[in-house]
Amino acid sequence: MTANDPALRSFVEVAPDSHFPIQNLPFGVFSTAADPARRVGVAIGDLVLDLAVLERAGLLDAGAPVFACDSLNPFMALGRDAWRRTRARVSELLRHDTATLRDDAGLRARALVPMAEAVMHLPVRIGGYTDFYSSREHATNVGSMFRDPKNALLPNWLHIPIGYNGRASSVVVGGTPIRRPNGQTKAPTAEAPSFGPCRKLDFELETAFIVGRGNALGEPIPVGEAEAHIFGMVLMNDWSARDLQQWEYVPLGPFNAKSFGTSISPWVVTMEALEPFRTAGPVQDPQPLPYLRQDGPQGFDLHLEVALKPGGGDGGGDDETTICRTNFRHMYWSMAQQLAHHTVSGCDTRTGDLMGSGTISGPEPDSFGSLLELTWNGQKPLTLAGGQTRAFLEDGDDVVMTGWCQGNGYRVGFGRVSGQVLPARG
Amino acid sequence: MTANDPALRSFVEVAPDSHFPIQNLPFGVFSTAADPARRVGVAIGDLVLDLAVLERAGLLDAGAPVFACDSLNPFMALGRDAWRRTRARVSELLRHDTATLRDDAGLRARALVPMAEAVMHLPVRIGGYTDFYSSREHATNVGSMFRDPKNALLPNWLHIPIGYNGRASSVVVGGTPIRRPNGQTKAPTAEAPSFGPCRKLDFELETAFIVGRGNALGEPIPVGEAEAHIFGMVLMNDWSARDLQQWEYVPLGPFNAKSFGTSISPWVVTMEALEPFRTAGPVQDPQPLPYLRQDGPQGFDLHLEVALKPGGGDGGGDDETTICRTNFRHMYWSMAQQLAHHTVSGCDTRTGDLMGSGTISGPEPDSFGSLLELTWNGQKPLTLAGGQTRAFLEDGDDVVMTGWCQGNGYRVGFGRVSGQVLPARG
Repeated sequence: MTANDPALRSFVEVAPDSHFPIQNLPFGVFSTAADPARRVGVAIGDLVLDLAVLERAGLLDAGAPVFACDSLNPFMALGRDAWRRTRARVSELLRHDTATLRDDAGLRARALVPMAEAVMHLPVRIGGYTDFYSSREHATNVGSMFRDPKNALLPNWLHIPIGYNGRASSVVVGGTPIRRPNGQTKAPTAEAPSFGPCRKLDFELETAFIVGRGNALGEPIPVGEAEAHIFGMVLMNDWSARDLQQWEYVPLGPFNAKSFGTSISPWVVTMEALEPFRTAGPVQDPQPLPYLRQDGPQGFDLHLEVALKPGGGDGGGDDETTICRTNFRHMYWSMAQQLAHHTVSGCDTRTGDLMGSGTISGPEPDSFGSLLELTWNGQKPLTLAGGQTRAFLEDGDDVVMTGWCQGNGYRVGFGRVSGQVLPARG
Repeated sequence: MTANDPALRSFVEVAPDSHFPIQNLPFGVFSTAADPARRVGVAIGDLVLDLAVLERAGLLDAGAPVFACDSLNPFMALGRDAWRRTRARVSELLRHDTATLRDDAGLRARALVPMAEAVMHLPVRIGGYTDFYSSREHATNVGSMFRDPKNALLPNWLHIPIGYNGRASSVVVGGTPIRRPNGQTKAPTAEAPSFGPCRKLDFELETAFIVGRGNALGEPIPVGEAEAHIFGMVLMNDWSARDLQQWEYVPLGPFNAKSFGTSISPWVVTMEALEPFRTAGPVQDPQPLPYLRQDGPQGFDLHLEVALKPGGGDGGGDDETTICRTNFRHMYWSMAQQLAHHTVSGCDTRTGDLMGSGTISGPEPDSFGSLLELTWNGQKPLTLAGGQTRAFLEDGDDVVMTGWCQGNGYRVGFGRVSGQVLPARG
């Protein structure tokens, strides 16, 4: 019985719609009021399993002491064999028919923490953050709005998994409020630019993968070996200031429009847990150059949603409204292709590097992964459940992203990544 | 007498054209064959002063033990008072009229290492690497070649210190060979892109500043306070694959064209040592927005040169030919403006962040800071001293950059940053 077997059950009770059954076992970094030291945990149902406690108890041996740490980096640096061995061992310890933890009340009390009591932290120490642009629908929508609807997709897009370097320092864990940025904007009709709070604040629904083990400078990762370097995935909100972006991005790409904050979900779902949900991605035509060619299904059937919970102030309700439903399987370029392309120049990657998918938009208007697309640059505002409308984000708005793979009677999920918009600095 | 006084003399003999007189005192990280542990040193003439030895001897107190370290980061994190106090103390210890070190043969033998025996390492642990684009002449040259000579400067350029995020992992210390990257290129006449070694490998002459102390997320650095956050400057070669860049850079900016390697000089010249060479930069017209406005001279009179030493293979000589002479004072946007702009969105910066100037080109054709400009995209090859010609870099070529501020009878210099081109991987 593998750690992915749908028949596995844990002695911890897990609701059928929980994101964290025994088939998932995502890794994160947490602390508690009682013990403020950050350490590595695994989510199971509504609990967090403290791996530092298990390690100290001699029940877990990753190959080196790596769980009483404030990031997953030391664990990830051990490589895929250690990741798999650890997940298998955690799965074994959580099974309904394994007595070790189940029947040891003292150990259970120390090792299992209610999720409601856990403070989640950034799970990885991020050296480099790269953001790709791999949804064909997103690239087409943006190209249609800002360039030419007849030639929306640029000539290089079908040949290169286009990406750019983002700002790693401002990546924060989900739940952290995001302050509306100030910056330069210029209306097409204005003589000169002006300075002030962003007026087109947006989210971007993305996933990101985390490099578990990198490559040396000058030694590219072949596409066929790329997945062995990837530890897992998170949800990501790539907050974007559209008006700043429009004015600054030519010719070197987005900069201040993105650097004020990027939110990732606290739980890293391992590639191994996602394996049962592998599915075919879109057909790639024209065929990519040989260094990007892959066999077999490269997508993942990962359902994604964005909800908006409006801030108070104008008498509206505060219910969440789901404004986007889409799926990661629409992505044109695979994660393995992204990593192979990133390193084919000889560029090195390192444990903890974060690589975003780019905005994930599907073919239907309600599957677009940003307000820019959902409201067509503000021209068609959305109406929320409480009756309020939104062209772009307002102060107090809370954006909540979630995603899961649906198994037979269970979900392998990512939890959520949220962030509330704070007013700009005066 | 301040540490910048031109009248200061050291008991260490220093030639008039040395880059490292007592008025400079740049910081770096070195090791030796006899002691492979990396530690912090200061250059003086042809010697390296080992600060870890002085610290252990109780002669240096930065406020915390920070010199037996493999990067300058712990020292830089102490802030500007500690930087100034340490430089003043090192200056005092090296003066011709201070006996402490001068007359202690045993201490001298331990603390002063011939530069020829020192192996230099990357001086800082770089969290984020940002590259600006702040030479008007360079931006105009590139715009003329690739867009429209009549509207070479894009509309945002005179309002924004344009910059983009670079790849920090592949920043290497000068002297490290650089492997020619492979990648995608597409000739304008070709039907489809092809894959292979870069055929337009180029250098970019830049300087970079290093953030000594950063800012918290959401708390911008005002332009008037920006210099207090800057520890010092290095020379930088931002190696560039022009054919890859041309095909990949729209719409998100350069990526693989830059990520295969960036070289910085091993010695960090402090802002304090550069202070006597402050000079007016170009007049900024139109006047920048208030958050970018500064008083007083914001440039530095820093002479810069690039030499090319051709590789063997076709019977040419191997003399160095100086192919570019320019000056940092031509830069349109100041470092303080760059840092204020970078953080005005709320973006945080951290100790060790590296911020490149962008290619430094002057107004004359022989003051252009890249082969792209010097040969006008290969149309006008350069003839080297040995008779060889170069449109772009060939395998075996060594690019050597140097720079100094000329004082009255002494130079405050950066040493050099070099890199030899290795053939692409087969």
